[in-house]
Amino acid sequence: MTTDVTSPSPLTMDHDLRASAARVLSRCDAVALCTSEEGEVTRLSFTPALNQAQELVADWMRAAGMTTRIDALGNIIGRFAGREADPVLLLGSHLDSVPGAGKYDGVLGVLLAIEAVASRDCAGLPYAIEIIGFSDEEGVRFHTPYLGSRAAAGSFEASLLKLRDEDGVSLRHALREFGQDPDSWPLAAYSAQRVLGYFEAHIEQGPVLESIGAPLGVVMAIAGQTRLQVRFSGHSGHAGTLPMPLRRDALAAASEWILVVESEGAKTPGLMATVGYVQVEPNAPNVVPGSVTCTLDARHADDEARRLAVEHLLAAAEGIGERRNISFELLTKAEQPATTMDAELRDVLAQIAAAQGIEAPSIVSGAGHDAVVMAGLAPTSMLFLRTPGGLSHCPEEAVDGLDIAKALEVMRGFFDELARRRSAVSEGISA
Amino acid sequence: MTTDVTSPSPLTMDHDLRASAARVLSRCDAVALCTSEEGEVTRLSFTPALNQAQELVADWMRAAGMTTRIDALGNIIGRFAGREADPVLLLGSHLDSVPGAGKYDGVLGVLLAIEAVASRDCAGLPYAIEIIGFSDEEGVRFHTPYLGSRAAAGSFEASLLKLRDEDGVSLRHALREFGQDPDSWPLAAYSAQRVLGYFEAHIEQGPVLESIGAPLGVVMAIAGQTRLQVRFSGHSGHAGTLPMPLRRDALAAASEWILVVESEGAKTPGLMATVGYVQVEPNAPNVVPGSVTCTLDARHADDEARRLAVEHLLAAAEGIGERRNISFELLTKAEQPATTMDAELRDVLAQIAAAQGIEAPSIVSGAGHDAVVMAGLAPTSMLFLRTPGGLSHCPEEAVDGLDIAKALEVMRGFFDELARRRSAVSEGISA
Repeated sequence: MTTDVTSPSPLTMDHDLRASAARVLSRCDAVALCTSEEGEVTRLSFTPALNQAQELVADWMRAAGMTTRIDALGNIIGRFAGREADPVLLLGSHLDSVPGAGKYDGVLGVLLAIEAVASRDCAGLPYAIEIIGFSDEEGVRFHTPYLGSRAAAGSFEASLLKLRDEDGVSLRHALREFGQDPDSWPLAAYSAQRVLGYFEAHIEQGPVLESIGAPLGVVMAIAGQTRLQVRFSGHSGHAGTLPMPLRRDALAAASEWILVVESEGAKTPGLMATVGYVQVEPNAPNVVPGSVTCTLDARHADDEARRLAVEHLLAAAEGIGERRNISFELLTKAEQPATTMDAELRDVLAQIAAAQGIEAPSIVSGAGHDAVVMAGLAPTSMLFLRTPGGLSHCPEEAVDGLDIAKALEVMRGFFDELARRRSAVSEGISA
Repeated sequence: MTTDVTSPSPLTMDHDLRASAARVLSRCDAVALCTSEEGEVTRLSFTPALNQAQELVADWMRAAGMTTRIDALGNIIGRFAGREADPVLLLGSHLDSVPGAGKYDGVLGVLLAIEAVASRDCAGLPYAIEIIGFSDEEGVRFHTPYLGSRAAAGSFEASLLKLRDEDGVSLRHALREFGQDPDSWPLAAYSAQRVLGYFEAHIEQGPVLESIGAPLGVVMAIAGQTRLQVRFSGHSGHAGTLPMPLRRDALAAASEWILVVESEGAKTPGLMATVGYVQVEPNAPNVVPGSVTCTLDARHADDEARRLAVEHLLAAAEGIGERRNISFELLTKAEQPATTMDAELRDVLAQIAAAQGIEAPSIVSGAGHDAVVMAGLAPTSMLFLRTPGGLSHCPEEAVDGLDIAKALEVMRGFFDELARRRSAVSEGISA
């Protein structure tokens, strides 16, 4: 199965790749300094911190021989032009971060792609390459993920421009402040006919590859995800005078539910269930809480298992509300079914890794990625890099330089093999 | 016991008092419009909203024949001057509010005092009257209550100026912005020798008076209070990839504790136990919470019962932390022992009410008040007004106009009786 993959000289490769990997790591350090909070990495969508990161990325793209542009949704895009009629291979990941993030989530995929293009001669490839640094994947600012990739994949909707952040700023306004024309979002969409495929490299963000001793993983599927925003509403009152039996304490109700969520996650194999966000009203030490808004993030590789768990958790919330005379509302609900990666691209990645002697087993992604959205546009594939300690979305997030070198090696082989297969198809067609 | 109290003609009184009560109510409405949040009452300490309220109050004080000043801690003070050598009777309450407050907590006591002075001839009294609208009682902004009355009572400390609000603004800076010289706080303290007593009228904020059908209550004692700020620290992580068994979710730990607090309050007679404030870090839907800061407000008329309950709750938090591999820290702790009201002033209030045919039973205050701090300066007394539904610290807070009229009647009788007793003492001394 590996005879059709050409492996470059390991010695030369090793030196170049190590230098490349070191450059990728130092660029991740540089991007980490683009933050809105001194001393930590916090780079929310459409902020000055993101703009600063984009300027670095654009410089590196141009140094790699690419032309750059920013689309209506604020995605930064570098193009390594093939011929006009050539299809385009998309590479990408996101440049926004969660609050208090690490240095590699998203950023690494963009910088790996730039390095992969910069470190080899792409001029002869029978396709163009575009690298996209997505402006919003985490969904922290507008409580809605994938705003950037939705535009690129053609699944953005005008109503999303009305989303508001916690300061009441609309997405439309945020995009204008970011220097873009939000209403030209339809122009950001790629035409599916022109796209050869989408590839994303990303840290695993979990402990699986580390536990089996593999540097890389070929993603088989991305777990489906349900995100809810719910509210428990009771009645606020004075903490010193409202007798305990008369209280309708929304925080006590929410606390009970948070523990149910935790226990549902613990007892259901494969389920990840998290309450990550809580807003108490009025949130004063001497006032019995009147209402609590919180979120649920539930993920599973099996859509039906996820659906059942969410159904159970909503029923539990209603039960808690009834017993406590607290009203329970489901405010918003977003469902993302599990996403299967393209079988052919997966095979290509697996073959190349095997030919290069790099262990890269199949893996399910618990995290959502831009690849989820891009899979609606084109054949999509993902390569995971081992994450020390499985830690992500925190300052301790790390990645090993050797694993980066191996990922680059696989990516360059991936370019060649796609070129070989495309030439074979063209010859087949012209024959 | 009531023969020494002179009751005015009920008919005349009734008409005047009803007009006065109506004026007090409409002034409460006017102060409620001084808010930093449109559509609700939110008037935190040292904000433009408080400044606006003080301007109204100062106008009404001057219309009542008083001179006005603002002290270093931003308390607004109106003086109805007696002779220079006369002692001063202090009347007061606070003008700050919790977020999403009602219209009467604090404000009513200040406006009742102004109306009591305005609606009778105080010139002949053998003491001066000063009315204080305290700038900070709720302690919401700096998580520390009674900043205003501490200055007046002489129990302020320079270190308090370093307190910071959630935006990082220090109390010192906030006072400067408010137009005051924070470092002259020692000048705000009254000399105990000059103060005849402190009197505060306030809504009960609880359901007791309503449940026994009494319009007023003479406060016997104010429940002791412990306020804690605690932090649960685990480790943040990606909500889609961090396996449930490996999580150190600070929010789940805090939730467990919040339920313990609730159940401790429910099962301990006389204990009020509340977690009213929660701050989750990083507070993003797709991140396992790394740390949670929250508060405990515990109150009891019996100091030892309160101490035991708090001890138990802290032990429970440590136990939860140990079991979950979550570190638990006590960040701040403030203790306020139960405060007994002055026995003589209580007697005076009870006698006057009885002579006027107004039911005013003894009552324990579950809420803390400026009177707690002022009791450290001078003989202190409080009169409660019935609170419909027992609701306070919420928009539904209410008070009955007839109850206001009755409170005014008692307050005017209180002025007279204090004058009579003081004259008796002076005569006794000069005799």
